[in-house]
Amino acid sequence: MGKSILITGGARSGKSALAERLTLGLGPAPIYIATAEAGDAEMAARIAEHQARRGAIWQTWERPDDLLAALRQSDGEAPRLVDCLTLWLSNRMFAGADWAGEAAEIARALPGLNAPVVFVTNEVGGGIVPENALARAFRDAAGRVNQIIAAACDEVYLTVAGYPVKVKPNAILP
Amino acid sequence: MGKSILITGGARSGKSALAERLTLGLGPAPIYIATAEAGDAEMAARIAEHQARRGAIWQTWERPDDLLAALRQSDGEAPRLVDCLTLWLSNRMFAGADWAGEAAEIARALPGLNAPVVFVTNEVGGGIVPENALARAFRDAAGRVNQIIAAACDEVYLTVAGYPVKVKPNAILP
Amino acid sequence: MGKSILITGGARSGKSALAERLTLGLGPAPIYIATAEAGDAEMAARIAEHQARRGAIWQTWERPDDLLAALRQSDGEAPRLVDCLTLWLSNRMFAGADWAGEAAEIARALPGLNAPVVFVTNEVGGGIVPENALARAFRDAAGRVNQIIAAACDEVYLTVAGYPVKVKPNAILP
Repeated sequence: MGKSILITGGARSGKSALAERLTLGLGPAPIYIATAEAGDAEMAARIAEHQARRGAIWQTWERPDDLLAALRQSDGEAPRLVDCLTLWLSNRMFAGADWAGEAAEIARALPGLNAPVVFVTNEVGGGIVPENALARAFRDAAGRVNQIIAAACDEVYLTVAGYPVKVKPNAILP
Repeated sequence: MGKSILITGGARSGKSALAERLTLGLGPAPIYIATAEAGDAEMAARIAEHQARRGAIWQTWERPDDLLAALRQSDGEAPRLVDCLTLWLSNRMFAGADWAGEAAEIARALPGLNAPVVFVTNEVGGGIVPENALARAFRDAAGRVNQIIAAACDEVYLTVAGYPVKVKPNAILP
Repeated sequence: MGKSILITGGARSGKSALAERLTLGLGPAPIYIATAEAGDAEMAARIAEHQARRGAIWQTWERPDDLLAALRQSDGEAPRLVDCLTLWLSNRMFAGADWAGEAAEIARALPGLNAPVVFVTNEVGGGIVPENALARAFRDAAGRVNQIIAAACDEVYLTVAGYPVKVKPNAILP
């Protein structure tokens, strides 16, 4: 069974760079599973910046929707980096899908996968309660997805200013 | 003197589930001190969800305002869970009460209580500065209440994706 | 070479009080480098509150813009506290300056300084993505500045409810 790692953190806290570093340490020929869709110029610029940093040794799979299928189809020898769960959730909510059920299926599938997986996700619940009901629903959903996937992962880290804080395993809750 | 614990974290980070687990570990017949008022459908649904998860062994006290009295009146053998300080603060600010003075009184009373107390609170200061002056005042107040109660507690944890990070005691500041 | 420390955290999480305590432990006659401008009553009140807490042993330098020059000019025996990087960034963005280049210059200069420096900064990326494009740009910039300075500092702490969580050095990334 491949190791599974979840990396969470606020915006620009160094999540993706840490995830790339950890993924490269888990084996050669890594696969980057991108959940983003380059819908606007801001997002396209961010995708291009991430690709330039990663360089040519990565294979990129663009999978904004069926993440479980992507994990199964890519399950060979190479480590996978899923960047990120929050955009995947946003895509699934927008499509009216059963995102909670899908996240639970991914969590159940993880122990059966051969190759390692590193997930990137976002902390979005640390600010004032949003006035907008959709924003409140999204931050609740994002927190639930983070908990569902974290429970199934071997390791969880919180990035702060580019550095990881170990969240799981720890001495309080294994 | 009963042990006192503060659990803080973002929305849907697993605060209440951890608090329930820790409270159950502190003794039988736990008391749940609810500071929420079921003012709208969203909050009523959240309260119902929490009650269903806790189950019948808990006794529930609804105390949206006089938290210190609730802690004194419930101070027997059973551990107490206060969920949550942020809603209590919101109720006290809305009522025009001296919330800072009341929080300081609770902090002073803690060492004299017999039965353990677990407090749940929220991290609300990790986003962009709110444009709304009331929201800014609330997040400042919430941070102050967290500091006042944390200073009087034996242990403080930050929940991330369902797992606790130890904040107090630690090697830097006891 | 003087020790350099970065302290980050949400609003009212105890950053400044910890920074003052750590700075006082690094030597006598500390210098407070204030990046705030008392532009409105709310900010003026906050500055006055911080000054009252610090007391008379601190020398205050008000330097909202050229932080690198302030660090070089104040580089004698006394420890310095820079409070805070987020306001400095805000001032530099508002002035149309090359804030990223200036932050990188500060990072490069740090190993050559004699006297210790403690930086205070803010976590602003832990909430929902702001609707406002300027707010999104600011939180991205703030995260980048935090990473740039953290990479050059000897120690990094995250404050939560008045207590520090160690971020750097740690066993995962030194």
